[in-house]
Amino acid sequence: MKIVINNFRPHMVMPEIFIEEMKRDYPGDSIVVSENKEELMAELPDADVLFGLRFTKDMLEAAKQIKWVQSLSAGVDHMPMAEMENRGILLTNGRGIHKIHMTEYAIAAMIMMARNFHVMSRNQIKGRYDRNISQGQIHGSTVGIIGMGSIGTEIARVSKFLGMNVLTVKSSSGDVPEYVDRYYERKDMVKVFEESDYVINLLPSTRSTINLIDGKYFSAMKDTGVFINMGRGNTVNEDDMIEALRSKSIKGVVTDVYNKEPLSEDSPLWSLDNIIMTPHICGENPHYMERAYKIFKENLRVFASGEGEMVNLVDANKGY
Amino acid sequence: MKIVINNFRPHMVMPEIFIEEMKRDYPGDSIVVSENKEELMAELPDADVLFGLRFTKDMLEAAKQIKWVQSLSAGVDHMPMAEMENRGILLTNGRGIHKIHMTEYAIAAMIMMARNFHVMSRNQIKGRYDRNISQGQIHGSTVGIIGMGSIGTEIARVSKFLGMNVLTVKSSSGDVPEYVDRYYERKDMVKVFEESDYVINLLPSTRSTINLIDGKYFSAMKDTGVFINMGRGNTVNEDDMIEALRSKSIKGVVTDVYNKEPLSEDSPLWSLDNIIMTPHICGENPHYMERAYKIFKENLRVFASGEGEMVNLVDANKGY
Repeated sequence: MKIVINNFRPHMVMPEIFIEEMKRDYPGDSIVVSENKEELMAELPDADVLFGLRFTKDMLEAAKQIKWVQSLSAGVDHMPMAEMENRGILLTNGRGIHKIHMTEYAIAAMIMMARNFHVMSRNQIKGRYDRNISQGQIHGSTVGIIGMGSIGTEIARVSKFLGMNVLTVKSSSGDVPEYVDRYYERKDMVKVFEESDYVINLLPSTRSTINLIDGKYFSAMKDTGVFINMGRGNTVNEDDMIEALRSKSIKGVVTDVYNKEPLSEDSPLWSLDNIIMTPHICGENPHYMERAYKIFKENLRVFASGEGEMVNLVDANKGY
Repeated sequence: MKIVINNFRPHMVMPEIFIEEMKRDYPGDSIVVSENKEELMAELPDADVLFGLRFTKDMLEAAKQIKWVQSLSAGVDHMPMAEMENRGILLTNGRGIHKIHMTEYAIAAMIMMARNFHVMSRNQIKGRYDRNISQGQIHGSTVGIIGMGSIGTEIARVSKFLGMNVLTVKSSSGDVPEYVDRYYERKDMVKVFEESDYVINLLPSTRSTINLIDGKYFSAMKDTGVFINMGRGNTVNEDDMIEALRSKSIKGVVTDVYNKEPLSEDSPLWSLDNIIMTPHICGENPHYMERAYKIFKENLRVFASGEGEMVNLVDANKGY
C-alpha cells in the first residue's frame, strides 16, 4: 500500500511526529510526503491513499490506482465527486475538526455586532473617543443556524449556554438537532431569517445550495438582524447581500467567505461600514492537523484491516 | 419619605413604568425624578433616598437628610465614602447588574485577540485581503481573572465551559472562588500574570489598587500574553502598559478604561496597533435599568419596612 501525504504549505503541514508514527504502525507500506503540486503529481500514479486538503480533476486522472482520499476540509465541493463515485473511490472529510474554533468565531462575531465593535474599531483608527455607541448583548437574543452539522450543533450548544434562543432548519436526515429550541422544515427556511437576530450560514456548496440565500431571505430579516457567513461564499447572492447592507434593511454582516476569492480590490464590499470581513480564515487553527490526523489514523486502521467503519464518509449525491 | 430618582441622560434613564410602579407601591411617599444636576441639587436637601449613578461631595453636602444612596454602578470609588460613613449613610451598589454583558465583552475580547481581529479590521479598512493572519483559539488556553466579584465569577464560569483553564487570586474574604482551577494568595498575584494567556483585570479603584498593575506584572507576562482591562483605568500604570506594548514584550491589550477619561487626542495609545480600545462602554447595556430597578425595589422594601437585609451593601473600608 502506498500512502501519499500532501502537505499544503504554509497552512496545512502534517507534523513529522505523526509521519514517524505512521511509519512505525505500517512498516511494510510506503508512506511518502509531497511538498508541492509537482511532487504530488509524480507520486500519485501508484498511490492507494491520499491525505490532503484538495483533490482536483487532474489529480484524479493521474491517480490511476487511488482507492481512498482523506480530505482535511469539511467542504469537499471542489472535488470531482461524480467521477470519484464512478471509480468507487472512497472519500472521507474533516467533519468535526473545526467545531471548536469555528464556534469561537461565531460567538465573537455575534458579540462584536451586538456591541458595534466594527464602529468602535473605525473610531479607534481615527483616534476618536466617542462613548455614544449603542451596546447590546447576545443573551436573550435569537440565533438561527442554517446547516446543522457538527459545527452548527456546537454553535447551538454554546449559544444555548450563553442564554440565546436557538432556531434552525430540520436536518436533511430528518433528525431533530440537539440544543435547538425550535426548528422549521426546509421549505420554511425563510422563517428562520424572519425570527432571528443573528442568522449563521454554514451551508456547504452543493447543487442545491448555490445562490440559495438571496434577496428573498435578506428582505425577510429584521432591520436589526445580522447575517454571518461561515459556510461557502457561493451559497449567497452577494449582490443581494450588498443591497441589504446599502439600504440598511439589515443591521450588518460578518463574512469570512465571498463569491470570488481572493476578494478583488474593487469589490463594493470594501466600501461598506456595516460589515466585518475576514479573509477565509475561520477554519484555520493551530490544532487542525492534530485533530485531522486523529481521524485519518482511525480511518487508516479500518482501511488497512477491513475491520470497523470509516468515519466521515462523504455521500457523493449529497456532497457532504 | 422622599425618594429622588436621578436620571443620567442619555444612558441611565429609569423607565416610566418603574416609576409608576413605585408610586403605586408607596402611595404616601414623595417620589421625584430629576433630569439634570440643577434639578437634582434642588431636590436633595429634604431627600431621604437617592437612586442614581453618581454621588459626589457637593451632592452629599446638599443632601442634609439623606439616609441611603442606591448606586447603579458596581464601582463607587468616585463617592465620598468616609464622609458618608461618618454620617451613617447607607450605600448600596449595582453589583450583579453587569455580569452577563461584561462577560460577553470579556469572551469576545479574548477570541478577537486569539484570532487577531485587530489586524484583520485594519486590513479591511485598507481594502487589503491577506490570508496570512495567524489564527488561534481560546479553548485550552489559560485565563487569569483579577477580581473575583460577581463579574469575575461569571467570566470564570463561561471560560471554563469554553474549555479554558481558570486562574485567579484568592478573594479577600478567603473564599475559594467558584469555577476556578487554581488560585494564588494575593501576595503571589504576579504568578497569575506569569501563567496566563489572558489576564482580565476587574479590580475596583480603592486605596490598595491604584497603580497596582505596573511594569513588574507586565514583565512577568508571556510574550504571547494578552492583558484585558475592564476594571478601572487607574489600577494600571498606563506608561508601563504602553512600554510593554511598544517593546512587544506582550502580544496585546484590550482596554475599555484609561488613566484619564475621556482619553486625550494626543495619548500615545492611539498610535499602537497591538491594542483594541473601547470608550468605557463595557458596563453599558439595554437591560441595565431593569436589573438595577430589581435591586432597588428589593432594597426599598427592606428600607421602608425594616424587615430583611439590604443587598449589595458597600463596605466603606474596603470600598466595594
